[in-house]
Amino acid sequence: MARDFQPVSGMETPRFAGIATFMRLPHIRPEEADDVDIGIIGVPWDGGTTNRPGPRHGPRQIRDMSAMTRHKHHVYRFSPFETCNVADLGDTPSNPVDVDDGLRRIETFYKDIVGRGIVPLSAGGDHLVSLPILRAVGEKAPVGMIHFDAHTDLYDGYFEGFKFTHGTPFRRAIEEGVLDPKKTIQIGLRGSAYDFTDREYGEKMGVRLMDMEEAVELGMDGVMQEARALVGDDPTYVSFDIDCIDPAFAPGTGTPEVGGFTTREAQALLRGLRGLNIVGADVVEVSPPFDPSGYTALAGATMMFELLCVMSEAVARRKDA
Amino acid sequence: MARDFQPVSGMETPRFAGIATFMRLPHIRPEEADDVDIGIIGVPWDGGTTNRPGPRHGPRQIRDMSAMTRHKHHVYRFSPFETCNVADLGDTPSNPVDVDDGLRRIETFYKDIVGRGIVPLSAGGDHLVSLPILRAVGEKAPVGMIHFDAHTDLYDGYFEGFKFTHGTPFRRAIEEGVLDPKKTIQIGLRGSAYDFTDREYGEKMGVRLMDMEEAVELGMDGVMQEARALVGDDPTYVSFDIDCIDPAFAPGTGTPEVGGFTTREAQALLRGLRGLNIVGADVVEVSPPFDPSGYTALAGATMMFELLCVMSEAVARRKDA
Amino acid sequence: MARDFQPVSGMETPRFAGIATFMRLPHIRPEEADDVDIGIIGVPWDGGTTNRPGPRHGPRQIRDMSAMTRHKHHVYRFSPFETCNVADLGDTPSNPVDVDDGLRRIETFYKDIVGRGIVPLSAGGDHLVSLPILRAVGEKAPVGMIHFDAHTDLYDGYFEGFKFTHGTPFRRAIEEGVLDPKKTIQIGLRGSAYDFTDREYGEKMGVRLMDMEEAVELGMDGVMQEARALVGDDPTYVSFDIDCIDPAFAPGTGTPEVGGFTTREAQALLRGLRGLNIVGADVVEVSPPFDPSGYTALAGATMMFELLCVMSEAVARRKDA
Amino acid sequence: MARDFQPVSGMETPRFAGIATFMRLPHIRPEEADDVDIGIIGVPWDGGTTNRPGPRHGPRQIRDMSAMTRHKHHVYRFSPFETCNVADLGDTPSNPVDVDDGLRRIETFYKDIVGRGIVPLSAGGDHLVSLPILRAVGEKAPVGMIHFDAHTDLYDGYFEGFKFTHGTPFRRAIEEGVLDPKKTIQIGLRGSAYDFTDREYGEKMGVRLMDMEEAVELGMDGVMQEARALVGDDPTYVSFDIDCIDPAFAPGTGTPEVGGFTTREAQALLRGLRGLNIVGADVVEVSPPFDPSGYTALAGATMMFELLCVMSEAVARRKDA
Amino acid sequence: MARDFQPVSGMETPRFAGIATFMRLPHIRPEEADDVDIGIIGVPWDGGTTNRPGPRHGPRQIRDMSAMTRHKHHVYRFSPFETCNVADLGDTPSNPVDVDDGLRRIETFYKDIVGRGIVPLSAGGDHLVSLPILRAVGEKAPVGMIHFDAHTDLYDGYFEGFKFTHGTPFRRAIEEGVLDPKKTIQIGLRGSAYDFTDREYGEKMGVRLMDMEEAVELGMDGVMQEARALVGDDPTYVSFDIDCIDPAFAPGTGTPEVGGFTTREAQALLRGLRGLNIVGADVVEVSPPFDPSGYTALAGATMMFELLCVMSEAVARRKDA
Amino acid sequence: MARDFQPVSGMETPRFAGIATFMRLPHIRPEEADDVDIGIIGVPWDGGTTNRPGPRHGPRQIRDMSAMTRHKHHVYRFSPFETCNVADLGDTPSNPVDVDDGLRRIETFYKDIVGRGIVPLSAGGDHLVSLPILRAVGEKAPVGMIHFDAHTDLYDGYFEGFKFTHGTPFRRAIEEGVLDPKKTIQIGLRGSAYDFTDREYGEKMGVRLMDMEEAVELGMDGVMQEARALVGDDPTYVSFDIDCIDPAFAPGTGTPEVGGFTTREAQALLRGLRGLNIVGADVVEVSPPFDPSGYTALAGATMMFELLCVMSEAVARRKDA
Repeated sequence: MARDFQPVSGMETPRFAGIATFMRLPHIRPEEADDVDIGIIGVPWDGGTTNRPGPRHGPRQIRDMSAMTRHKHHVYRFSPFETCNVADLGDTPSNPVDVDDGLRRIETFYKDIVGRGIVPLSAGGDHLVSLPILRAVGEKAPVGMIHFDAHTDLYDGYFEGFKFTHGTPFRRAIEEGVLDPKKTIQIGLRGSAYDFTDREYGEKMGVRLMDMEEAVELGMDGVMQEARALVGDDPTYVSFDIDCIDPAFAPGTGTPEVGGFTTREAQALLRGLRGLNIVGADVVEVSPPFDPSGYTALAGATMMFELLCVMSEAVARRKDA
Repeated sequence: MARDFQPVSGMETPRFAGIATFMRLPHIRPEEADDVDIGIIGVPWDGGTTNRPGPRHGPRQIRDMSAMTRHKHHVYRFSPFETCNVADLGDTPSNPVDVDDGLRRIETFYKDIVGRGIVPLSAGGDHLVSLPILRAVGEKAPVGMIHFDAHTDLYDGYFEGFKFTHGTPFRRAIEEGVLDPKKTIQIGLRGSAYDFTDREYGEKMGVRLMDMEEAVELGMDGVMQEARALVGDDPTYVSFDIDCIDPAFAPGTGTPEVGGFTTREAQALLRGLRGLNIVGADVVEVSPPFDPSGYTALAGATMMFELLCVMSEAVARRKDA
Repeated sequence: MARDFQPVSGMETPRFAGIATFMRLPHIRPEEADDVDIGIIGVPWDGGTTNRPGPRHGPRQIRDMSAMTRHKHHVYRFSPFETCNVADLGDTPSNPVDVDDGLRRIETFYKDIVGRGIVPLSAGGDHLVSLPILRAVGEKAPVGMIHFDAHTDLYDGYFEGFKFTHGTPFRRAIEEGVLDPKKTIQIGLRGSAYDFTDREYGEKMGVRLMDMEEAVELGMDGVMQEARALVGDDPTYVSFDIDCIDPAFAPGTGTPEVGGFTTREAQALLRGLRGLNIVGADVVEVSPPFDPSGYTALAGATMMFELLCVMSEAVARRKDA
Repeated sequence: MARDFQPVSGMETPRFAGIATFMRLPHIRPEEADDVDIGIIGVPWDGGTTNRPGPRHGPRQIRDMSAMTRHKHHVYRFSPFETCNVADLGDTPSNPVDVDDGLRRIETFYKDIVGRGIVPLSAGGDHLVSLPILRAVGEKAPVGMIHFDAHTDLYDGYFEGFKFTHGTPFRRAIEEGVLDPKKTIQIGLRGSAYDFTDREYGEKMGVRLMDMEEAVELGMDGVMQEARALVGDDPTYVSFDIDCIDPAFAPGTGTPEVGGFTTREAQALLRGLRGLNIVGADVVEVSPPFDPSGYTALAGATMMFELLCVMSEAVARRKDA
Repeated sequence: MARDFQPVSGMETPRFAGIATFMRLPHIRPEEADDVDIGIIGVPWDGGTTNRPGPRHGPRQIRDMSAMTRHKHHVYRFSPFETCNVADLGDTPSNPVDVDDGLRRIETFYKDIVGRGIVPLSAGGDHLVSLPILRAVGEKAPVGMIHFDAHTDLYDGYFEGFKFTHGTPFRRAIEEGVLDPKKTIQIGLRGSAYDFTDREYGEKMGVRLMDMEEAVELGMDGVMQEARALVGDDPTYVSFDIDCIDPAFAPGTGTPEVGGFTTREAQALLRGLRGLNIVGADVVEVSPPFDPSGYTALAGATMMFELLCVMSEAVARRKDA
Repeated sequence: MARDFQPVSGMETPRFAGIATFMRLPHIRPEEADDVDIGIIGVPWDGGTTNRPGPRHGPRQIRDMSAMTRHKHHVYRFSPFETCNVADLGDTPSNPVDVDDGLRRIETFYKDIVGRGIVPLSAGGDHLVSLPILRAVGEKAPVGMIHFDAHTDLYDGYFEGFKFTHGTPFRRAIEEGVLDPKKTIQIGLRGSAYDFTDREYGEKMGVRLMDMEEAVELGMDGVMQEARALVGDDPTYVSFDIDCIDPAFAPGTGTPEVGGFTTREAQALLRGLRGLNIVGADVVEVSPPFDPSGYTALAGATMMFELLCVMSEAVARRKDA
């Protein structure tokens, strides 16, 4: 018998009430989740953070603020919860005192999820968490990626040779063959730089690097037109670093760069994902200690709902195919 | 002998000094206000709030931050305080523990004010306060309304049949015949929805519903051109829910929706009201507990000054007529 | 087969990880809770608040901060989770826009819980929530009460006759015969007063009113010696208004009064409850909007753990008897 | 016909409502205040501040938080508003860009007030405001002073010879003959020091300097016994620097020193003033920018209510005499 | 032997580590700075502030947040630290209790710096600090100025004749002949006004006054095209009041005006300075007490880096010439 | 020629001015520090944190707030800066993404410092930083320790066998033979516990464990009498975890436990160290992201000044010996 995957409605139970799960969805443990299409997962870990810590607290605050989410998208006029079975699968294991072990625990979790045929929508955590997720979703073949961020995260190492930080995940993912650089676009890059070895690596590997300035010039529609053309129908991962958004709109993050996207622009960008073959997505770098108000988490939760809507259509299409 | 209705000047008395009244105006009790043209009124009540409370504290914080307001509008180059007699009429009575009694107290207050020929500019309070105000200004004939908001506030009820909440005032106002739906436009709608019964009701009654996305596409001038055409010269109320503004600019509100107007856009919208036959206006949903910095109240106070300028011209025109 | 009621350990899963339940306990729905001895319950409602609102958000923030709680009490050297089956039973229903309906929903919930033989430990909510709880625990016979508070909450009404506010619950409870005034002591009273009709009523009914000043003079041990003597072995409810604690230690509350207990004193007071026949307890008036840091909720969660320890012994004793 | 000097009651008008005056008292302009016994006055000026500024904003925030004050003192069981005519006399003039002119404006204001026979209870402002107040109350004869503070404020000058700062007012007051050093006691001194020339001056002039450590050792009763003995029945001014209180209880101040009094101790100290011949009092150095929560202002307002009670008795005694 | 003027790299030493200097540059005392081309200087003074104080704390918070700055500009693709010798020259002397002495101390400091051939990039302090800086850079001949601000700062006086406030520096600078009004443009003016005597003076003297509304209409490129045409190759000072930016992006300032530039627009404006003959620049009015989060200081630091880049090219060009 | 080691005086340069060093002391690089007696060192590292991160930011905020420190101790009446040469030696190297490497870098730094005969006074960082410091100061022979903390930090491991966390440093130090457990006392222990294996280990090794409750009962003098007796004249390290203080006084820490010491009690405790043979000290676990106000850092800086005073006497005695 089919389970009920509908979120609690704020018309019946006020939004401040109840145990906080992502979007007020039922919490289902991974081992009981085989009828789940899209699993929303928290990754409470920031072991790769090189400056201001805190994204380990992200999933809890995003859960709290995601109670603001309602059922239907006001532009699309449909509910992703009616399109697919969506559930909160809880948090991955975490180890705040060891990077290697932390990565291993997260990777194991995602390989199980992906193995069950569940499409993951994740809430970080710092950006290093995208690496073990990509190891799972790109295990069989490298995936393409549409990546919204102020930074390339393509550096080779920090602090004299440390290779696993939130500034290096996508270089590792390319090296490991789980991410296809030629199907990868990075949107919103900006801010001063120690050097440009990250960009040089990306350019050499074929990554499309798009500065904030270029994105503004192209306009949000133009940006996504190019992104869609790049990835085509291939399996595509979406990684959304909250710091692509301007710190006025999303202060709770570790490496803020002024001059970013507004949330309105970010919504326009994510709506440009419609029709793509999305195989997973994340929203990372929400750092509650730097925004106790929760508005950064609200922005993150809203972006997760935008992602969920386009993901739910992709899942439905794949089911139909 | 005419009383002096000029605000205290910050060139003489620093803006941090003195008892805080709206825009540093004289405080006059309603019963002594017969020479007042426009009365600024606080409505310290949030009895209709379904999620995060706090607008009951709005009038006090808006008064505090409105000390930043000076005399002349820098675009219009005139002072509304020279055009009309404007005064702070204090706060309405309030009852935080009973919705029916709260509504009754506010309605009584406004019927007295309107009966004295005073045009009310109100600071809420949650959005339910617009209902008793409309009962007063629309008592003789239903008024039109230009409504800036992320939400329609046209729902029928919450929590299994409770009809008076901040999500329902305009449905009630239409039902009660104090608001003319065909002369009503709602600007800036956005955010996910439990269902669309609010919009369906509005559309059925003839309300013009304009999503944020459409507003951005039309541009602020285009939006207001349509609004002005809709209401024409008819008596029009203006209701400004602070959550029409993006939470980056106005975080202190109970139902924030990312992707909203900037304050610069909001100013452009309100300047588009020039020339209309405005019979009252409000700024609602400023919730100080969610913004102790006071910047939301500053945005609210600035919008009130924009409203006051266009209202003062309308009052002067009506006097001349 | 017995279920596992152990909290998640921070030695295995870091305390920032996982969906937030009270003290990291399993969440069990009331209808499946018949093997639960003590149920921790959130009451997200502040419909009786006469000044600064917010306790409706209390349960969620207390859940979050209660992740700091570990298993064993460092003075008692035992774990209440080994003494009894303890679970998070979720939140009661709520109605933020109607006091009567809100009270009814809460009362119904508690009558069901108490009917199942579960001892409730509740997180408010404003102090009016104690009334429907007492209606349940005192249904068969009036209970005694040890009440920690800056205020008596014994007023008759507010705003010209409104009888149900957070300043009136215990007068109502005495009138309704669910609270035994002669077995009631109020500890920590202080702050200026509109009048003393509350105290006069209490004194007339036989309530023991103890001002802060007297409590300090007696010392915490002396206070509790008297409290224990008063209630004896009779069924006793404990109500802990967070504002009995000084606002330096617990700023997130609606009616703060300087000059209160330190948390150290509060712990000493609650340890004085050991050995009593406790039939229920609450911690109320934690108002997150007035303390986004969460420290007030941490104080509340810590007091709930103190209460849980002495309650678990009482439950065990009653089982043994 | 006698005017009504009663504060607005929170039992009728909720405390969040209405224009904020001190303790919700009527606002009366000095020139119409001849029937006022005790005038509460704001001094929005911090021209003498050598480190962190902000007390210029003190009066407004204290007015806001003083809405928490009710009518009767819960220990004394009387209302100062029934003992005397008390009113909010508004703020003094201010000049934030010139120390000499600022001092002159304040002095002029107070000489007028004192000349009308009104006893001033003032809300600063930084501690330099006590100098022009003392010039008024000590004009005819030097007054004694009970001074609660972490600092002596007896330095000679700062920054190579600048004589008017918030670290120098009482040296100036002694030099000018408006303060009697032999009838002056300073309570709660603590914190590291650049040098001890302030203390040496004080000791030379006969001021009683009491360190925090000595105060704790004596106990609050012992401290006030000595203070009372020192000033006897002579006209005595009370100056309460909020930084005598520990920053945990009153963080909003410019020169915090850890290890201070609790608010409970502060209340005990102020109750020790009962029976003295108080001719004026102030609470200074509340700096809202360093405490947007308002709790420092609440502590300040509560101390003002304590002072008002003992002042009202002194005024009544002098009237009777 | 040449000293090393490179900033500490965050790839080696994490950005949270180390004593905070501007942009992690070496701190060099002015008297040892003869090989410095551009000196970054803090001016910890706000003696001219007429409303909300705090910019005296600006330099320290900007130093802290400027640790986020890296070496190379991501659009220009060069490092100003390789173009010129840049150092942190520490703070000017300050006197918070006397305007005249404060101005004198700052002027003396800058005359020494400019006399050594060092180009100053300053972090205020309130806007009055631009006056003593202009006295130094404009000593030999009046300079032109590109001025970003919500306010003209061209008033004559405040509080009945006080001539030195943060609302008057540029009128004084024109009167003193250190600023050439015909080569001066003010960009971003907005907000209500007591009167327009400031604008009338500016217009009379030939200053180009550009309202926010006009700037938006022209677009950022259009604005700077006009600014560049106005100043040509003449020695030009750049003054950047952080309040030209909207308070959503830069709340920590004393006179916020809603409706301002975004940081993205501000960056576009500053990039329009490229090629000009810049002889000094400042970023003023960052007020940490009104933004403990530090994001306003981060915006300020980012603008300083933009300014540094265009200044370093100007210095290099002058050296080559 | 002797260098000047005097802090900048706030009587000359206001405390908000200048680059922030510890206590406004000169910054001297370790390699040039051979005439330094006591080196104040920042350890910007929190690699061992198991819950809420942030102490990596501690040194910078403590430097900022330590500008409040003046020269002389008001009880001792001497200046430690006249007793010894004291300097800010900057921060240790740090590696936020690798615990082993982080520990190694800190240990190397301290072995160099101690090798130069400099006595270290350190500002953490999380409590794991005490381990590499003890490896340096206890290298030749194990030292005794007076340890103020809510927690024993004597656990064996976390998260299935990770041995280096901020909950384990002193177990490692005992195992490594750099800390003498029989000369170790832990004061202020409290809070619930997962288990008591930490205490069992401590007791077995001979550590004196003193709960908060026992400390309160003994009184601060009694506590320190016992501590002094325990360590005698032997070389003793002092470790002060800011969480020994109650979170009302020091909220900015990762593992707060209510019911702690007041700062006044903490000062009394540290004054009880007078006369001991102190060979190093630290203040750890100040976490700025959880207290942007800086008051926790102020408490930490004040405790560092208390420690410095007693350390300077110990250094002078050893020199004399």
